[in-house]
Amino acid sequence: MTEATTTRRGRGGGGAARRAERTAVRIDCARFIERNIPDFEVLTPEAIEIIEANADRVLAEIGVNFVENPAALERWRQAGAEVTGERVRIPPGLARQLCATAPASFTQAARNPERSVEIGGRNLVLAPVYGPPFVRDIRGGRRYATMADFETLVKLGYMSKWLHHSGGTVCEPTDIAVNKRHFDMLLAHMTLSDKPFMGSVTEPSRARDSVEMCEILFGKQFVSENVVMTSLININSPLTFDATMMGALEVYAEAGQATIISPFVVGGAMAPVSVAGTLTQVLAEVLAGVAYSQLVRPGAPVIAGTFVTSIDMNSGAPTFGTPEAAQITYGMGQLARRLRLPYRSAGAFNGSKLPDAQAAYESANSLQAGLLSGVNFMLHACGWLEGGLVTSFEKFVMDADQLGALHKFAAGIDIGEEAQAMAALEEVGPGGHFLGCAHTQSHFKSAFWRSDLLDYKPFEQWFEEGGSDTMSLAAARVEKLLAQYQKPPLDPGIAEALSDHVARRKAEMPDAFT
Amino acid sequence: MTEATTTRRGRGGGGAARRAERTAVRIDCARFIERNIPDFEVLTPEAIEIIEANADRVLAEIGVNFVENPAALERWRQAGAEVTGERVRIPPGLARQLCATAPASFTQAARNPERSVEIGGRNLVLAPVYGPPFVRDIRGGRRYATMADFETLVKLGYMSKWLHHSGGTVCEPTDIAVNKRHFDMLLAHMTLSDKPFMGSVTEPSRARDSVEMCEILFGKQFVSENVVMTSLININSPLTFDATMMGALEVYAEAGQATIISPFVVGGAMAPVSVAGTLTQVLAEVLAGVAYSQLVRPGAPVIAGTFVTSIDMNSGAPTFGTPEAAQITYGMGQLARRLRLPYRSAGAFNGSKLPDAQAAYESANSLQAGLLSGVNFMLHACGWLEGGLVTSFEKFVMDADQLGALHKFAAGIDIGEEAQAMAALEEVGPGGHFLGCAHTQSHFKSAFWRSDLLDYKPFEQWFEEGGSDTMSLAAARVEKLLAQYQKPPLDPGIAEALSDHVARRKAEMPDAFT
Repeated sequence: MTEATTTRRGRGGGGAARRAERTAVRIDCARFIERNIPDFEVLTPEAIEIIEANADRVLAEIGVNFVENPAALERWRQAGAEVTGERVRIPPGLARQLCATAPASFTQAARNPERSVEIGGRNLVLAPVYGPPFVRDIRGGRRYATMADFETLVKLGYMSKWLHHSGGTVCEPTDIAVNKRHFDMLLAHMTLSDKPFMGSVTEPSRARDSVEMCEILFGKQFVSENVVMTSLININSPLTFDATMMGALEVYAEAGQATIISPFVVGGAMAPVSVAGTLTQVLAEVLAGVAYSQLVRPGAPVIAGTFVTSIDMNSGAPTFGTPEAAQITYGMGQLARRLRLPYRSAGAFNGSKLPDAQAAYESANSLQAGLLSGVNFMLHACGWLEGGLVTSFEKFVMDADQLGALHKFAAGIDIGEEAQAMAALEEVGPGGHFLGCAHTQSHFKSAFWRSDLLDYKPFEQWFEEGGSDTMSLAAARVEKLLAQYQKPPLDPGIAEALSDHVARRKAEMPDAFT
Repeated sequence: MTEATTTRRGRGGGGAARRAERTAVRIDCARFIERNIPDFEVLTPEAIEIIEANADRVLAEIGVNFVENPAALERWRQAGAEVTGERVRIPPGLARQLCATAPASFTQAARNPERSVEIGGRNLVLAPVYGPPFVRDIRGGRRYATMADFETLVKLGYMSKWLHHSGGTVCEPTDIAVNKRHFDMLLAHMTLSDKPFMGSVTEPSRARDSVEMCEILFGKQFVSENVVMTSLININSPLTFDATMMGALEVYAEAGQATIISPFVVGGAMAPVSVAGTLTQVLAEVLAGVAYSQLVRPGAPVIAGTFVTSIDMNSGAPTFGTPEAAQITYGMGQLARRLRLPYRSAGAFNGSKLPDAQAAYESANSLQAGLLSGVNFMLHACGWLEGGLVTSFEKFVMDADQLGALHKFAAGIDIGEEAQAMAALEEVGPGGHFLGCAHTQSHFKSAFWRSDLLDYKPFEQWFEEGGSDTMSLAAARVEKLLAQYQKPPLDPGIAEALSDHVARRKAEMPDAFT
């Protein structure tokens, strides 16, 4: 067992907190990735010029709709846009100019300061799957997700070394009323993990509830001065900004909290069937959305998002891990960097019903594109299955294991004298072997990334031990991680205040299902 | 069925050949990939300078061994190297200078001229797995490979649209004597497929046999003027060139036939545990090997190869699809381009025992690195399983399907007016959808790459139809392709001459097992 060793923690806290810490299991968590590799760029300077000019034309001539949101229309009017009904036409250059006040990078604080993440620049922060109404595991099969599943997933995220972020709706807890589940979800992230997390966006009031709970966890003053949530604001592509999502955006921007402003595009349905056309639309949508966030509060931290899949024209199903999605991921990375905005895209996307080879091919294709495209915040980095309908427990740990490889690759190639290994080459010489040489002895432990999950055994041993496939190995790992899990220490006063608050607020309101 | 349609072929030939062609099934085969994307480069100019200088030092100070090969030593002496015993020390700059006569790209002719491939430049040619002594399929499990398996694999390669090359030892036909099996293998490639193929390298005499059979297939004159085989010459890393492989190289170079000169490295065992050290050694080995080919015959077509895996320091097993292997694949691509040599690396590598998620993650990681690193010839692009011990029939078609995605991605992003889709964006506008718009109607058929294997069905339909995983889908595809298979037309006179030749040559010699 390499991941958890019992140890005393160095942080301060009250007496009860200290007592809790004394028995705590220490969980390894990698620092967010700081890329020491270049970005892969698919767009030529000429292509960038065309797409940027076209996006400006889309905003100026076609415009975007801000639906049922008179205050937003008024903000746009004041900023110099042409507003007709709910249509906002933005003169060339205006959106880009408004975007300039958004920070190029920001820190999201975690309650454990060692887990705080810096989003932007050369960094890559990895967060789990978001949104599935179903879960699947090897024992229970596919079923509607519950709050118990949600808690299990938060625990798995906490135990996953290469995951920097606890995420948000790791599955939809369908056994809790829609208008109340955000309380339980936040409580789980706040108490079962000490990694950073996301807030609710399904109603402006729920965004306010999220800020309020953060004020209990972090303190009011701290929340007013720090980013403690990064929440997902989807754009209703094509070119539509609905009142719910914009209402949540407004709450978060006003509170100085971060949002991901993200077109949600199934190419061929919500965007043109061409990559260049989709990039144009996505850029226009991101420009309008980010500009709007800066109208609400200049300097509000935002991430330029892109969620892109394309439709299978035979079945109508969305497809994942495809070459077109990769092209858009790479291209939008270039365009986001030109806006000096943090960039969100990619994830362990796939359309498979099972955590099988299809799931892995598609996920690996998409993870690689995310790594090399310069993504700064990767939602859905583990656990995604069946086009996002299902969170798979096994896939969660399978993907989370692969994320370790991204860390190692992103560190780049050490070219220092020791890494050059000239003495080893001399020592071994033609026809020898390096297994016993001094250089190998000094470095073998850290030289190569090693999976904590996959099978490296000789065939005979693997066969005698039952011949498990990856799904079975993953199921065993899920069990092992959950057996090892212990809550991270939290001041008991804060824990109590949080659970009291959730109980009280939930009791105040009738159940609702929207 | 989209892949095979009965059609009359346009090629000439004798009357019998024409009759054969009249009933032939037309098999789609994609043209080799011409990359319209940049290369991903992980080495800084400074890193390149260090590695190149170190490789020169390795050649000059440590040197390489040419084992049991006095003629090779004499060639090196004459060229200006310092020869002591079997050790050859090559003065700085000499190897690089000798490499300069090797062509930057060359055409390998196939017997069907439409299948000829151009190896080098921005191109990528895809060939199947090479070397496994075992095969595996869903029905027969894992077993020693036979000539019947070999033929099945050649047929699958012929039926695989995205595979440009028939390969070489797609599995070891262990039921045929070692000294005779090259005849049967070549006969299978020559008669069951019309794609280009590889020759035997396990003995210089078998290389000569390979040339002789090509002379029957293509004609003597044609073989003397064209590359008709690209064969795999492994270097015995570290820094050792054995007489068998060099003997085969000599035969092929003298005949003007192409070879891949390829270090075979398990990092930590046959090379240092560091990426920079391994790149240094691999570059030194490639420089010495390619230089030697040019000493044999200046202008002989060669490919700079790199086969790199690293050892798992816990189990001693080789590992695949790892970040270190990707770094070496990318880095060696840069170094090979500086030598203006075609580059061979990557493949659908994995260490899994089954065509499961592990196999797919590792394979996809490796295929992506191959695509973006500028590889020109990718051996093992499909079918590889269990660290190269096994050719899997199901994995063969799974990987071969993924190769289609590489084609689409490598084509780059169309930025022409039609692809910009401005009219579609205008037509649809905010809140609409693109499914029915004119642009989508015109382009939907070719807009998105589509798998011929993976599952895109809605969950309910998938479940009712039996809930197959990728391995089962692949097994069904193997059966379908084999059921559709028909031999490509071949002049009956040539076919007869080939089989007579093989029968006669095999009868002339006693069975041998080395």
